Amino acid sequence: MKKVKDFLWKPNLTVEDCVNKFGNLGYQASELKEAVEVILKMKRTNSKIFLSFTSNMVTSGLRGFFAQLCSLKIPNFLVTTSGSIEEDIMKSAGEKFLIFNFDADDVQLHEKGENRIGNLLIKTESYLKFEDLMQKYLKDIYKKKKRISPSELLKEIGLKIKDKNSILYQAARNDISIFCPGIIDSSFGFHLFMFQQKYPDFIVDNIWDMGKITTQLSFEDKKAVISLGGGISKHYSIFSSLLSGGLDYAVYMTTSHPTSGSLSGATTQEAKSWGKIKDDGESATIIGDVTITFPIMMSTVLDKMKKEELI
Amino acid sequence: MKKVKDFLWKPNLTVEDCVNKFGNLGYQASELKEAVEVILKMKRTNSKIFLSFTSNMVTSGLRGFFAQLCSLKIPNFLVTTSGSIEEDIMKSAGEKFLIFNFDADDVQLHEKGENRIGNLLIKTESYLKFEDLMQKYLKDIYKKKKRISPSELLKEIGLKIKDKNSILYQAARNDISIFCPGIIDSSFGFHLFMFQQKYPDFIVDNIWDMGKITTQLSFEDKKAVISLGGGISKHYSIFSSLLSGGLDYAVYMTTSHPTSGSLSGATTQEAKSWGKIKDDGESATIIGDVTITFPIMMSTVLDKMKKEELI
Amino acid sequence: MKKVKDFLWKPNLTVEDCVNKFGNLGYQASELKEAVEVILKMKRTNSKIFLSFTSNMVTSGLRGFFAQLCSLKIPNFLVTTSGSIEEDIMKSAGEKFLIFNFDADDVQLHEKGENRIGNLLIKTESYLKFEDLMQKYLKDIYKKKKRISPSELLKEIGLKIKDKNSILYQAARNDISIFCPGIIDSSFGFHLFMFQQKYPDFIVDNIWDMGKITTQLSFEDKKAVISLGGGISKHYSIFSSLLSGGLDYAVYMTTSHPTSGSLSGATTQEAKSWGKIKDDGESATIIGDVTITFPIMMSTVLDKMKKEELI
Amino acid sequence: MKKVKDFLWKPNLTVEDCVNKFGNLGYQASELKEAVEVILKMKRTNSKIFLSFTSNMVTSGLRGFFAQLCSLKIPNFLVTTSGSIEEDIMKSAGEKFLIFNFDADDVQLHEKGENRIGNLLIKTESYLKFEDLMQKYLKDIYKKKKRISPSELLKEIGLKIKDKNSILYQAARNDISIFCPGIIDSSFGFHLFMFQQKYPDFIVDNIWDMGKITTQLSFEDKKAVISLGGGISKHYSIFSSLLSGGLDYAVYMTTSHPTSGSLSGATTQEAKSWGKIKDDGESATIIGDVTITFPIMMSTVLDKMKKEELI
Repeated sequence: MKKVKDFLWKPNLTVEDCVNKFGNLGYQASELKEAVEVILKMKRTNSKIFLSFTSNMVTSGLRGFFAQLCSLKIPNFLVTTSGSIEEDIMKSAGEKFLIFNFDADDVQLHEKGENRIGNLLIKTESYLKFEDLMQKYLKDIYKKKKRISPSELLKEIGLKIKDKNSILYQAARNDISIFCPGIIDSSFGFHLFMFQQKYPDFIVDNIWDMGKITTQLSFEDKKAVISLGGGISKHYSIFSSLLSGGLDYAVYMTTSHPTSGSLSGATTQEAKSWGKIKDDGESATIIGDVTITFPIMMSTVLDKMKKEELI
Repeated sequence: MKKVKDFLWKPNLTVEDCVNKFGNLGYQASELKEAVEVILKMKRTNSKIFLSFTSNMVTSGLRGFFAQLCSLKIPNFLVTTSGSIEEDIMKSAGEKFLIFNFDADDVQLHEKGENRIGNLLIKTESYLKFEDLMQKYLKDIYKKKKRISPSELLKEIGLKIKDKNSILYQAARNDISIFCPGIIDSSFGFHLFMFQQKYPDFIVDNIWDMGKITTQLSFEDKKAVISLGGGISKHYSIFSSLLSGGLDYAVYMTTSHPTSGSLSGATTQEAKSWGKIKDDGESATIIGDVTITFPIMMSTVLDKMKKEELI
Repeated sequence: MKKVKDFLWKPNLTVEDCVNKFGNLGYQASELKEAVEVILKMKRTNSKIFLSFTSNMVTSGLRGFFAQLCSLKIPNFLVTTSGSIEEDIMKSAGEKFLIFNFDADDVQLHEKGENRIGNLLIKTESYLKFEDLMQKYLKDIYKKKKRISPSELLKEIGLKIKDKNSILYQAARNDISIFCPGIIDSSFGFHLFMFQQKYPDFIVDNIWDMGKITTQLSFEDKKAVISLGGGISKHYSIFSSLLSGGLDYAVYMTTSHPTSGSLSGATTQEAKSWGKIKDDGESATIIGDVTITFPIMMSTVLDKMKKEELI
Repeated sequence: MKKVKDFLWKPNLTVEDCVNKFGNLGYQASELKEAVEVILKMKRTNSKIFLSFTSNMVTSGLRGFFAQLCSLKIPNFLVTTSGSIEEDIMKSAGEKFLIFNFDADDVQLHEKGENRIGNLLIKTESYLKFEDLMQKYLKDIYKKKKRISPSELLKEIGLKIKDKNSILYQAARNDISIFCPGIIDSSFGFHLFMFQQKYPDFIVDNIWDMGKITTQLSFEDKKAVISLGGGISKHYSIFSSLLSGGLDYAVYMTTSHPTSGSLSGATTQEAKSWGKIKDDGESATIIGDVTITFPIMMSTVLDKMKKEELI
């Protein structure tokens, strides 16, 4: 068994060295180091990897990092919510989000047209800009296809985007499908509705994407999930893997706990009772805000992959 | 300002008396009492009420209570996930879920065909029974309608169910729409996919339900949300209200915190910056497991409504 | 194995009936019912019971309930912090605490001499009143005893208090020792310091209380803990039991989770590795705010004890 | 207002660069960057700094880092619990703690004499070694002083320790007082008791340390707290600062939330209502496990201090 070893600071410590030291600390630090090992195994075995995340992470600057991971072909599939999509599009159009604070006069913000997400702000005008873009995008896509799956729709939009820091841009160009089981929610969903009012034969067929999953994933593939946050994105990626035999590797990063039975807080152990993770599947769970834990963990993975010439 | 008053036990205390005392205690107890008042105002003003919940709550015995609330016409709309739907159908077919514990040998459970959700178990055979029912239901419904919205689909299924403790049964018979933005997730979604493989012109058009919302809710209506847990169900119900001017009343019951910017933990204050809750909207938030907090709160509401002859 | 059973409201539901129904719900609700059973076993077996709690619970109106439980001789020992003691004394002197809200202008409160604890307020003048009382109490006690243990000191103060809703009053009159391992913290500790400045031979000998524990608890006794919240009060009560062989019964009520290794979030399972809880010890853990969970649970215990003629 | 900026990985990223990028991300990442700035201000202004932490952090390998921070004279005072002290002494005597996992067969661990703290293990034999040392240390110290304050006692022990990674060793040699308001808890407290059984005139006078605080801190000093975790250590350090006018700077790192009114989860805003933090005091709060957040934050602080020639 591994021994606890005292953490000592050295000047100019790299993130990788720091995470190596985390492996000797215990609690969430050693789990984070373990997660690095699990993801390296995913990549060494050419596992098919789902990366799932929630829209608040796209609101934060993790959006560019998700795009970068796509450009490096780390995940094979993304699963997220419609909020993520609309904010990626806004940012691709040059809209800027602001860092404010958690204690705010929200009525005053409302008057100023500033919408708060934790300690971040999105201006109402960013939504207006998004609206214009969406109607334009949808018109173009509708000309090509009247019945479309969400992953096809998002690929088409991605191909129209010019921003290299865009998730949709990079996913579209690196053959990474974006699944969005709740695509009809949020502003994105509302604009689908507005468009359909004019073009009633426009159909977004979400059932089709389950067909895509069953053809792109086989029982022979090693399968893996990196799940950030919870909700429908976490469930959909795990469930998709279950359809072809369950996960070989799983990393959960969340702030939820298992005590109220929610899927968001469900443990990797619980997942084994379902066969969502295989009996001998390897996993790690890190409790904490992903704006801190994910860059630390994933930068370490990338530095180690570079040394192994995996990227 | 109200003063803290010592809680004292009396024999055979009723839940309503207990909650009245909670109003003098502080922290989450006084929030729970405040939530009772907010919901009473919703009902006194004939607000249109969204009740949103996650599937783990249906796994637990809250399912029958949600059905009872529909029979009492408390909510006007339900918003939930596909997991809730499939479990409601299983239970309506007589399937029983078991109470186990949080610490389990999950590999052993897997071998026995028992799937764990917190301290509860669902047998794999319940899913098989569900599969049979679903294909039968879908065949019947498909004969009537090839392109259908989720709320219509769930109403049709509800009308076929015979169990008075079923959410779908009661919603269908009491003119309560069930919205399910992520309906294509889970086993429910998988069986939609299997059915569509045979009948490719079968379409579940989730965009249609946004149209339904916009016609059933007006700017003149008082609007309200009772949100249990987070995720897409919480967001969809709040966003739906925003489309016609935002909420007059909101009660959030959750285990999430606002610190990582997730919608699940987003506060009612934050909602005001968006206009999701009106500037003068009234709200209460209760942090805790809804299997405890919701029956306590809602039983008190019902006892008080009875006295006011509102039910 | 027990089956999940749907919760259904009936008019005028009692707390006991509600908790009985909780036993069929899962998650924290079934844990709460389990905790009721564990506490009933504590009382049926005449276990020596530690009740530990933190000062914020005394700030809230649970203070009177703790006193009532002492009058009913439910616990044998209390373990708490100095903040609890000072607030119990303030309230005994007629000081009132106020219910405000979690979002406050704290700089403005500071100007008004109102100190916030969550959504509660304590006036600075309550501290001034406490100061006067303390110096008077200490003078009297010092005349009798110059070197005193915390439990003796608190008993002496309890005997001077006239308020039946006071924890110190009831503990002193019902032969219940109050242990306060961190007694020198807070205003209470500061006034001990001020007094000792004048009377340097005044000694509060906290080591003595460990002697008291070892004489009042034997390996033959059944031992039990009801731990509300975490911190030093939780640890001290568990550690005290360990000195005479560990706990037969334990109920933990907390908002903390085990993920960062803190004692506050430590599980009853972990406690078994230490022998803090015996291998065959029975336990339950309820995650949630005790202002809600404790009155619900404990009122049910008392109603059931009454039927069994245990009180 | 600052704008959100996408995080992008570069090979061999240093911790400092990573944290600089955190400042553009939002949520807890931007709070962590803010905390770095607040601590730099503490040091630039020669503030008197309290560093408080709980014993589970000493169980983990943060113990050596706390010692290193003392050797670099970062804090002026430490506040912690007796568990921290005993584990620092064990480790100084060469005892090793093990990294295991959160899911364990605790009854089996008990049989093997391995005591679990989260995912870490301490062997029972480490406690036996500690016992021998303690009785030896106490005998020596008793010869010099029969009535002693905790901070004096811990300094004396520190001077006997030979391990440079020991908190007590470095504190004793760098003129840093260790306050331990709950010193009589835990094994440490038990051995004080055993010793006093033989030497009844041995007195650990915890009141004396409040005198020490009042002489070592003045209203003129800038005062600061870095509080890791909650409980009595957090409260004592904040209260100590309040005695001489309140804090100019505060960094809280915790996993607790303010919703149940506990001091562990109390916000820096709430602290202002008490004057614990001055009206214009600067602060940051980071929610997350300190085994991850503290090394990241503090390594960045040290790298920046080095550039400013502050160390």
